[in-house]
Amino acid sequence: MFKIIELQNGLENIQGFYCDAVNVGMRPDKDQGDVAFIRSETPCDISAVFTSNTFQAAPIKHFQKYPKDFKTDFVLINAKNANAMTGEKGVEDIDTIMSTLSKKISVTNPLMSSTGVIGYRLPIDKITSAFDTLDFSASHSDKAARAIMTTDSFKKELAYKVELEDGSTFNIAAICKGAGMINPAMATMLCFIITDAAIPKSDMDVLLTASTERSFNRISVDGDTSTNDTVMLLSNQQSEIYDKKAFGEALNKIMFELAMMILRDGEGANKLVAFEVKGAKSLEEAKTASMALSNSLLVKTALFGEDPNWGRIASTIGASGIVCNESKLTIYYDDLLIYSDAFRELDEAREAQAYKIMKQESFKVICDIGLGEATYTSYGCDLSYEYVKINAEYRT
Amino acid sequence: MFKIIELQNGLENIQGFYCDAVNVGMRPDKDQGDVAFIRSETPCDISAVFTSNTFQAAPIKHFQKYPKDFKTDFVLINAKNANAMTGEKGVEDIDTIMSTLSKKISVTNPLMSSTGVIGYRLPIDKITSAFDTLDFSASHSDKAARAIMTTDSFKKELAYKVELEDGSTFNIAAICKGAGMINPAMATMLCFIITDAAIPKSDMDVLLTASTERSFNRISVDGDTSTNDTVMLLSNQQSEIYDKKAFGEALNKIMFELAMMILRDGEGANKLVAFEVKGAKSLEEAKTASMALSNSLLVKTALFGEDPNWGRIASTIGASGIVCNESKLTIYYDDLLIYSDAFRELDEAREAQAYKIMKQESFKVICDIGLGEATYTSYGCDLSYEYVKINAEYRT
Repeated sequence: MFKIIELQNGLENIQGFYCDAVNVGMRPDKDQGDVAFIRSETPCDISAVFTSNTFQAAPIKHFQKYPKDFKTDFVLINAKNANAMTGEKGVEDIDTIMSTLSKKISVTNPLMSSTGVIGYRLPIDKITSAFDTLDFSASHSDKAARAIMTTDSFKKELAYKVELEDGSTFNIAAICKGAGMINPAMATMLCFIITDAAIPKSDMDVLLTASTERSFNRISVDGDTSTNDTVMLLSNQQSEIYDKKAFGEALNKIMFELAMMILRDGEGANKLVAFEVKGAKSLEEAKTASMALSNSLLVKTALFGEDPNWGRIASTIGASGIVCNESKLTIYYDDLLIYSDAFRELDEAREAQAYKIMKQESFKVICDIGLGEATYTSYGCDLSYEYVKINAEYRT
Repeated sequence: MFKIIELQNGLENIQGFYCDAVNVGMRPDKDQGDVAFIRSETPCDISAVFTSNTFQAAPIKHFQKYPKDFKTDFVLINAKNANAMTGEKGVEDIDTIMSTLSKKISVTNPLMSSTGVIGYRLPIDKITSAFDTLDFSASHSDKAARAIMTTDSFKKELAYKVELEDGSTFNIAAICKGAGMINPAMATMLCFIITDAAIPKSDMDVLLTASTERSFNRISVDGDTSTNDTVMLLSNQQSEIYDKKAFGEALNKIMFELAMMILRDGEGANKLVAFEVKGAKSLEEAKTASMALSNSLLVKTALFGEDPNWGRIASTIGASGIVCNESKLTIYYDDLLIYSDAFRELDEAREAQAYKIMKQESFKVICDIGLGEATYTSYGCDLSYEYVKINAEYRT
């Protein structure tokens, strides 16, 4: 058995890693950085999951130029400019920035990660000016977490200590950003996870992919998938302790909690809703229906309007194309049955209970297809006026 | 050669058909009906295209109980209640209503079509009370077109005369409704087309399917597909005149124009945008990318914000999963090139021109993938605060 203990703060909990951020003038609010780094004393193994968007941003192309199983000790991150759709020049710009960096500090295979507006070249001089003011021996997780935000309204950082049965421990910590363009096929998000666990590289790859499927791939703010989505896991092995099951669970937990933070911070969102589809004929069908629900504009606006009518839920299940039958279907809000073949029109008492559930900040919509054994849960949020305002005004 | 001439008004242009509507108390505004009919003096051939939603509403199940190639002379239509997710009872209710109808007037295989809230049984007494006040010999197309509206802000009716080379003529007319839940796989819409053309039943089926693909299947307001979507074509052959090419073109035209009316009336929409994807490797890929654009929340909010940045357009193309390459891609707003490999950042003059185009009520976004010959155009609209308001308040 093992214990996962939540720690205060974020990245500073992992020995041998450093981080800091500064504002180089890309963001008007000078109290918040726009260039950050995460650095390790020793070269780290790295695993990464990137966007499925065909137009991968320049930092992703730059990453992919390194040989398989390379090690790195430096990740530079900037906000306000995605360095996406910038062609070959976008990759060359990163090389230029890294060559300036290497005159300041010795780095091994340095990486870059960017978020912000698509289609503009990076302001190289501004970004390299950060190298004069960043403290490469600092551990300012808070600053780094705030520097990578775009439309996020709060910073996202988490850290856990994992204690194994014999009392030995390792640690895992992460920062991430993401508020809009959140789709259940990765999200418009950057996530940097660091650990001192003595995890083999092959386990890193397998576990990161599995945890991504259970976390960031199950949330939807608006069904859009960006050019920059990146989840990175860096391990410096310093604790010399490792247990695959315990690490896997801690990774699941940190990524799931961060995913829920992203959703709670979904642009203009007020509610976090789990869409559990069970009793489907196959996992693929359960997933299709669950994601159709978390992506449906009509479901999202009904959540915002706090209307307990199940008509849009049922209609969306039917429109998703999965095998289903209206006489086998049942729908619940939390534990409250709101649709079954036995009754369709809600009586007053049940409708009042349903209103109450929908007023909560978080609840579950459960659709039992009644035809099989497969279950899948995705997570969504409501769609408010605020979402439209943010996205009409924000230039992606 | 032939001419298609637009006529005043709607269904009253087709000899041998009658229509009327009354308010039986399902809709508060007494000036607008909630029950309407379309009737023919003689039994008509009928073709229909229905929703792809698995949970087809009761009127569709009722239709499908008739033998193949049946004829009909009566369609009853109601608003405010979709008679969807009402199980077997929903179909029985239609039989009850039709049996009351047949005591008032002789009908052959009468049909029903409904739109409104999902999950409630039809108010049978209210609906049959209409039979005391409806004038079965009237030609009140305006009343019928207004009675079938839900969140529509204006009625939709059209009529054309088709004049063949020898001077002979036939006519086609239609009414339709639909404002939200408009998805490029049919729309939340009802459309009733009547004609006096001497069209063979087999041509009716083929041409209706083809025209649906070119019109109602290419528009998106919110990407949702309802339980009730129906397009019906009724022909009484009375003109004894027919030409396949001319009829096909008139049918295309009437359905396309109605589809554009639906889009212009999209819930809260201010802009009608054509998304033309060309140079794709296959028609399937062109269609996938085009529909991804007309359905993307980020594209829709950028249209509302009148932001000429092409980043969201490019990102959506990349996220659609089609074969594409950022150096081959070009993007235009109307005739204005706004993205190509040669330049990425818009200069001020070009950005000013782009703003001007986006301020128009209607314009074209053209994405040339640059890899093939296939082209597909779908049609979308912007997403405004008003959409959220309408759908938070309206119970589907």
